[in-house]
Amino acid sequence: MNTIGRLLRLTTFGESHGPAMGGILDGLPAGVHIDMERLQQMIDRRRTGRSTLTSQRRETDIPEILSGVSSDGRSLGTPIGFIFRNTDARSGDYSEIESHFRPNHADFTYQLKYGLRDARGGGRASARETVNWVMGGALAAEWLRQLGISIEARVVGVGNVGYDDPLAELRDNPASASLPHDEDIERGMLEVVDTARRNRDSVGGRVACVIRGVPAGLGDPVFGKAQARLAQAMMSLNAAKSFEYGLGAEAWHAYGSQTLDLFNENFNPQPMSSDNHGGILGGITTSMPIYFAMSFKPTPTISRPLPMPDTSGKLTEIAVEGRHDPCVALRAPVIVEALAWLTIGDLLLLSHHEPLV
Amino acid sequence: MNTIGRLLRLTTFGESHGPAMGGILDGLPAGVHIDMERLQQMIDRRRTGRSTLTSQRRETDIPEILSGVSSDGRSLGTPIGFIFRNTDARSGDYSEIESHFRPNHADFTYQLKYGLRDARGGGRASARETVNWVMGGALAAEWLRQLGISIEARVVGVGNVGYDDPLAELRDNPASASLPHDEDIERGMLEVVDTARRNRDSVGGRVACVIRGVPAGLGDPVFGKAQARLAQAMMSLNAAKSFEYGLGAEAWHAYGSQTLDLFNENFNPQPMSSDNHGGILGGITTSMPIYFAMSFKPTPTISRPLPMPDTSGKLTEIAVEGRHDPCVALRAPVIVEALAWLTIGDLLLLSHHEPLV
Amino acid sequence: MNTIGRLLRLTTFGESHGPAMGGILDGLPAGVHIDMERLQQMIDRRRTGRSTLTSQRRETDIPEILSGVSSDGRSLGTPIGFIFRNTDARSGDYSEIESHFRPNHADFTYQLKYGLRDARGGGRASARETVNWVMGGALAAEWLRQLGISIEARVVGVGNVGYDDPLAELRDNPASASLPHDEDIERGMLEVVDTARRNRDSVGGRVACVIRGVPAGLGDPVFGKAQARLAQAMMSLNAAKSFEYGLGAEAWHAYGSQTLDLFNENFNPQPMSSDNHGGILGGITTSMPIYFAMSFKPTPTISRPLPMPDTSGKLTEIAVEGRHDPCVALRAPVIVEALAWLTIGDLLLLSHHEPLV
Amino acid sequence: MNTIGRLLRLTTFGESHGPAMGGILDGLPAGVHIDMERLQQMIDRRRTGRSTLTSQRRETDIPEILSGVSSDGRSLGTPIGFIFRNTDARSGDYSEIESHFRPNHADFTYQLKYGLRDARGGGRASARETVNWVMGGALAAEWLRQLGISIEARVVGVGNVGYDDPLAELRDNPASASLPHDEDIERGMLEVVDTARRNRDSVGGRVACVIRGVPAGLGDPVFGKAQARLAQAMMSLNAAKSFEYGLGAEAWHAYGSQTLDLFNENFNPQPMSSDNHGGILGGITTSMPIYFAMSFKPTPTISRPLPMPDTSGKLTEIAVEGRHDPCVALRAPVIVEALAWLTIGDLLLLSHHEPLV
Repeated sequence: MNTIGRLLRLTTFGESHGPAMGGILDGLPAGVHIDMERLQQMIDRRRTGRSTLTSQRRETDIPEILSGVSSDGRSLGTPIGFIFRNTDARSGDYSEIESHFRPNHADFTYQLKYGLRDARGGGRASARETVNWVMGGALAAEWLRQLGISIEARVVGVGNVGYDDPLAELRDNPASASLPHDEDIERGMLEVVDTARRNRDSVGGRVACVIRGVPAGLGDPVFGKAQARLAQAMMSLNAAKSFEYGLGAEAWHAYGSQTLDLFNENFNPQPMSSDNHGGILGGITTSMPIYFAMSFKPTPTISRPLPMPDTSGKLTEIAVEGRHDPCVALRAPVIVEALAWLTIGDLLLLSHHEPLV
Repeated sequence: MNTIGRLLRLTTFGESHGPAMGGILDGLPAGVHIDMERLQQMIDRRRTGRSTLTSQRRETDIPEILSGVSSDGRSLGTPIGFIFRNTDARSGDYSEIESHFRPNHADFTYQLKYGLRDARGGGRASARETVNWVMGGALAAEWLRQLGISIEARVVGVGNVGYDDPLAELRDNPASASLPHDEDIERGMLEVVDTARRNRDSVGGRVACVIRGVPAGLGDPVFGKAQARLAQAMMSLNAAKSFEYGLGAEAWHAYGSQTLDLFNENFNPQPMSSDNHGGILGGITTSMPIYFAMSFKPTPTISRPLPMPDTSGKLTEIAVEGRHDPCVALRAPVIVEALAWLTIGDLLLLSHHEPLV
Repeated sequence: MNTIGRLLRLTTFGESHGPAMGGILDGLPAGVHIDMERLQQMIDRRRTGRSTLTSQRRETDIPEILSGVSSDGRSLGTPIGFIFRNTDARSGDYSEIESHFRPNHADFTYQLKYGLRDARGGGRASARETVNWVMGGALAAEWLRQLGISIEARVVGVGNVGYDDPLAELRDNPASASLPHDEDIERGMLEVVDTARRNRDSVGGRVACVIRGVPAGLGDPVFGKAQARLAQAMMSLNAAKSFEYGLGAEAWHAYGSQTLDLFNENFNPQPMSSDNHGGILGGITTSMPIYFAMSFKPTPTISRPLPMPDTSGKLTEIAVEGRHDPCVALRAPVIVEALAWLTIGDLLLLSHHEPLV
Repeated sequence: MNTIGRLLRLTTFGESHGPAMGGILDGLPAGVHIDMERLQQMIDRRRTGRSTLTSQRRETDIPEILSGVSSDGRSLGTPIGFIFRNTDARSGDYSEIESHFRPNHADFTYQLKYGLRDARGGGRASARETVNWVMGGALAAEWLRQLGISIEARVVGVGNVGYDDPLAELRDNPASASLPHDEDIERGMLEVVDTARRNRDSVGGRVACVIRGVPAGLGDPVFGKAQARLAQAMMSLNAAKSFEYGLGAEAWHAYGSQTLDLFNENFNPQPMSSDNHGGILGGITTSMPIYFAMSFKPTPTISRPLPMPDTSGKLTEIAVEGRHDPCVALRAPVIVEALAWLTIGDLLLLSHHEPLV
C-alpha cells in the first residue's frame, strides 16, 4: 500500500540507501504548466545538509521526470514518473546495526512483518521517502495554485518554546489571520534544537498549517470526510503523533454557546464570521480557511549508547552514529504542505462532478 | 464514499428521518459464530433515551440481519446486509429549519454540495448514522475477540473536569495499565453535562481508547500505516476535532533521551518496557497496546435563538427544538470502539498473507 | 468483493433463500428524478414466472427504497439503500442436495472457499442476486437517459438458431443500424428453448448489446479502458463464457486494409464512416456506438439424475427438482443492460473532470 | 488509472518516445528469490527487432531495478520500482502525423480526452507500454512458480490459418492436454503474416492461454470473479477484441446434458473428469486448468496512404512510415502470460486469509 489518493494518486518506491527513490503521480489533469524552477524550490525546502540543525546527509535531490510532461512543459494527463538518485548513501554507517534493532525505529516491525529488511538507513521507513511526497505535492501545487488555493505550514513549537495557541487567530479572524510569527520565539525554537543536538539528544516539535481558497463542497460525507482524508495523510509521517483541526485537542473544554460560528448576512464577506469549525462541516468544506496542527515525537535516533536486541532478543550496548536530524519537525512543514496539496487535489477531482459554489 | 475498509468493508446508508438506516459488512471471514445477544448489548450502549443526559429520541435499535449468516448463526463469508427501521422520527420538529441553515451543522455544506438535502434531523449527517457503524464493529468484534483482541474506550474529560493525562499510565506501564477510573471525576463529568443541558448549552468531551492483543506486523508502511488508518476512521466522527496516540499532542515537548522505549532482554515479558510509541512503529504494530485519545466539540445544536440564513443568505432568528445530546462525547465510546474493531479487522486481513509473529 | 464501480458503486447482498436481497448504490448524482414506474418496468423485465420458458419461481420483486431519495422523488446524492424481500423461497426443494455438490454449480467452490455454505437455492451464486444489479442499473439509467444515452440488449442466438453475425450491421452502418430482428428467428429460438425444457435439458444462448449516445473521452487508458470495464462487468454473470466487441471473436481473420474506420470530412455526420472499432479506441470512447456480444453456457441444472459427491467425494445419483430456467440467456438482456448502465455511469463520473467534446 | 490489481498492484508510466518506461510493483511478498536471468528471458520474448515479422524498432529492454530487492536478490516486501530507458526512439518518423489522426489509433481519443497528446509513437497508447506489464508479470512469476503454478500462451490463429478449436483438448482431457502444436499450421501462420507485411497490410491473430496449478478457492463471488478479473486484465491489451474461457464464444450452441463436468469418485485424480467450466465455477477456481482464448484485430498502422483529419476535421492523404508489427498477436503471448501472472497473484493474496484446499 504505497499509494495515496483515489483519483489523484501518488505511488512511491525506494529504500534510503538503494539506487533511487521515485514515484508515479497519476491523475493530474492535462494541460497544467509545470514550472521546474518552482518545483525545485519546494523540493529544496525539505533537503538536508543546509545547516547544523538538520541531518548532514547531502543529496542534490534533483528529480528526473520520465513521463507525463510534454516537451513544452505541460502535463499530458498521463502518469508522471520521476526518480531521485541516491548519491550520498554511506551504508558503512549502518554496518553495526544491521543485525540489531534500534529503539523506537521501524527496524523491529519491518523484520517482524517481512522476515527480512534493508537495514541500511532505515530502508523504506527512512525520512528520505518524503522526497517523493514533496515531488508529488509540488506537482499538484502547480495545478491548484492556478485555482487560487494556497497552503502554508510552519514550525510553531519545539520542546518548551513555541506559540501558545497557534491556531487561535485563525479561529477568530479567519479573513485576515495567518500563522503566527515572532522573531524571539523563532530564535528560541532553534536554540532548543541546537542544545538538543549538542547534548546528543533529540527533541519533539509542532507544526501548524493553513489552507486557503478551497471552494465549498469538497469532501465526501461519512467515510471520505475532508478532515479524515487530511488526518490519514498527515499521520503517514512516521513521527507524527497527533492531528487536530478547528477547536482541536482542546475542544473538550469548549461550550457550544461560545464556539458557534455565526453566519454573516448574505454570506458576506465570507459565509461565517468565525472559523471554529476549521473550514469543514459534516466532512465537507465551507470555503473558510482549513487549518490544523500536528505534534511530532523526537527523532528516535540519539547518539548515545543504547541496549539493542538482535533477532533472538539478546541485548548489546550500541551507539548509532549515522546522520540524523535532532528535531524532525524542522523539515516537516514542506512535507505537510505536500500531503495537503495532494489531498486537496484528490478531493477536488472527486467532487468535480457535483454542483459547487 | 460511504465505505470504510479495504478487505473488511462496511458500506452504509440512511437518512436520520428516512425509513431505515442500514449497511453491508463485506469480508468478514466465514465460520464466525455471531452471538446476537452480545451484538445487541454493544448496540444498546450507543442508544439514546436512557437518561436525561443524552438525546430523548427513543429508537429500539434492533437490527434485522438480511443475509450472510447461516441458520445456526455462523458467518457465511458472504456480505452481511442489515437494517434498522427508524421508528421514532418526529419530522415535525424540523419543519422550521427546513429552509434555514443551523450554525456549525452540515445543513449548509450538504446544500452547497448537492443542491438539495433532506433537512429533517440532519439527514445523513445525523449521529443516527453511527448505529450502522456500531453494528459493523460489533460483527467484527465477534471475530476478533476470538483471536484475543480487546478494545475499550471511555470518556476521560468534559468541559473543565477530566483526567490530566489519561494515557500516561499506558505509556509507562503498558503491561498492567488500563484507562483511568475515579468516581469523583466520573461524577464531576456528568455534572458538567447536566449543567450544560440546564443552561440550554452544550459542552465538548474527550474519549480515550486502548486496544490490546493485536499481533505484531499489522499495518502497511508508507500510506497504509496503522495509525493513519485509525486516524482516518476516528476523524469520520462528525464532532471529532483531534486524534492523538503514543506521546500524543504533547509530543512536541518531549526529548528523545527520555521517551525511548527500551527493549526487554529476550523480548520478555513484552518486546519493550514502556510504550511511548503507542503500539505502532513505522506504521506497523509491535504487539504492545495501541492507545489513543480524541477531543470532541460541543454539540452544535443548542436550544437558544440563533440567527440562521436561508439559501439567499437572509438571516432570521430561530430557536431549534429537536432532541439532542448536550455532550456528544458521552455516546462516543462505543462508536470509537466499533471503528477500531473495523480498522483492526481490516489490517489483519490485509496482513494475513505475510509472516506474523 | 461485492462492489462494482469506482465512483458510481453498487454493493449488494443476499442469499437466494434468505430473508431478502438488497444493495446500496453510492455515487448517483443529486437531483435525478427517479420514475418509480419506469424503474419497476425494468425490474419486471428480468422477473421469473412469466412463461413456461423461464423459472417457475414467483417473486413480486418490488423494491423498497430505504434512503437517498427525497420525498418528491429526487436523488439526494447520498447512498440509495434498497431491499427485495424473498417471498417465494421453497427451501424444501433443496433438502436433498444440501450435502451434495451439483455438477457445474458453485456449490463445490463455495464449500472449498468458505468451509460452509447456504445450500438452499445456490445461496449467493443464484441468479436471484441479479435483481440487485437490475435495480442499480435502473437507477443509473434514470440519470443517464437524461444525457441522451440509450442501451439495448437482445437475445441473438440459442442452440443452433440465431443471427449469423448480429453485430455486422453496427460495424458497417453505425449511424442507422440497430440489433437485428427477424420474426422467424425469434420464434425459432423460443422453440429451441421449449424443446430443451421438454427434454429435461438446458441450452446455451447469445446476447448482443448496443450503447448509443456515449460522449467521446470516457475510459481511462491502460488499466481502466472502457472495454476492460465492460468485460469485467459482463463476465460477472455466472453463465457468461465470452465477451467480444467491435470486430469481436472473429477479429483474427481480419486484414487492416479492410477494417480501418476512415474518418469523415469535418467529423460529419459522425467522426468515422464505419465502426469496426466498436466505439472505443485506446480504451477511450469515440462517440460512435459501443456494441458487444456475449455467449452463455446452458443452465447447469438439468432435471435428470446425475452422480453428485458429498464432501468426502462419495458419489450418489441424485435428480435435482427445483425451478430453473432451461436457457439462462432469455433473462440476461435486462441484466446486461443494467451492468452497462452502471459501467457507463461510472466512466462518466471518472472522466467528468477532464475536457470532453 | 494506470494501476492493475488490488493487493498485488502494478502501476506504470511512460510515453513510447519519452525518456523511459517504468513501473512499481507493490505487494509482492517478501523473501521471493528474483532470478534476473529468467526475468530477462521473459522480457526478451516480447522484444521487437528479432525478425522481419515484428517491428524493426530495437530496444535493449534491460530493466533497472531501483528498489524492493535485497542485495542478495530477494524481494523485501516493499515496492519494486523499475525503469526501461527508451534508447531507439526515432521521433522523426512521426513528424508528419503530429497534427493528424491515424485511423483506428488512439490519437483521436487522447486528443479528445486530454486536449493535448504526445504524438510521437502513439505516446502512452503504444505497445511499448507492455514492456512494463511483462516486467511486472515476470516478477510475479518468480513467486508463483514456486507454488507450482504454470502459465503458457501461444498464437493459435492468424488470418485464415489456425487451429479449429484450440481449447477443445483442454475441455475434454484436462489432466493431460496442452495447447495444440502442429508444424504445418505454425509455418502457415507465419506465412500469412509475411504476406501481409509484403502487401503493406496487417492481419489479426488469435492467442490461447492455459494456467495450471492454481489452488481451488481463488476469486471473489459476485464482482471479483476470477473470470471477470482475467477478462478485465486481458481486455487491457489495445488490440484485444474478445475474451472467452471454458465453453467460450461457441457456448451458445451447447446443451447442458452434453457439457456438464461430472465429478470423479473421491475427487480423484482431479475433482472433475472434464473441464468445460474452464477451471472456474461461481467465480471461484476449482483447481482444474484455467484456459482462455482472445482475438486481436490487425495492427491499425498499414503503410499505405490514408485520409487523415487534423483537429478541425480537414482530411489529408498521408502514408505513415514508422516501424510496426504486421500482426500484433505474434508478440502477445508473453504479455498475456504476464497479465495472467499478475491476476493470479492478486487473487491468491486476496484469498489467502480463507481456508483453501
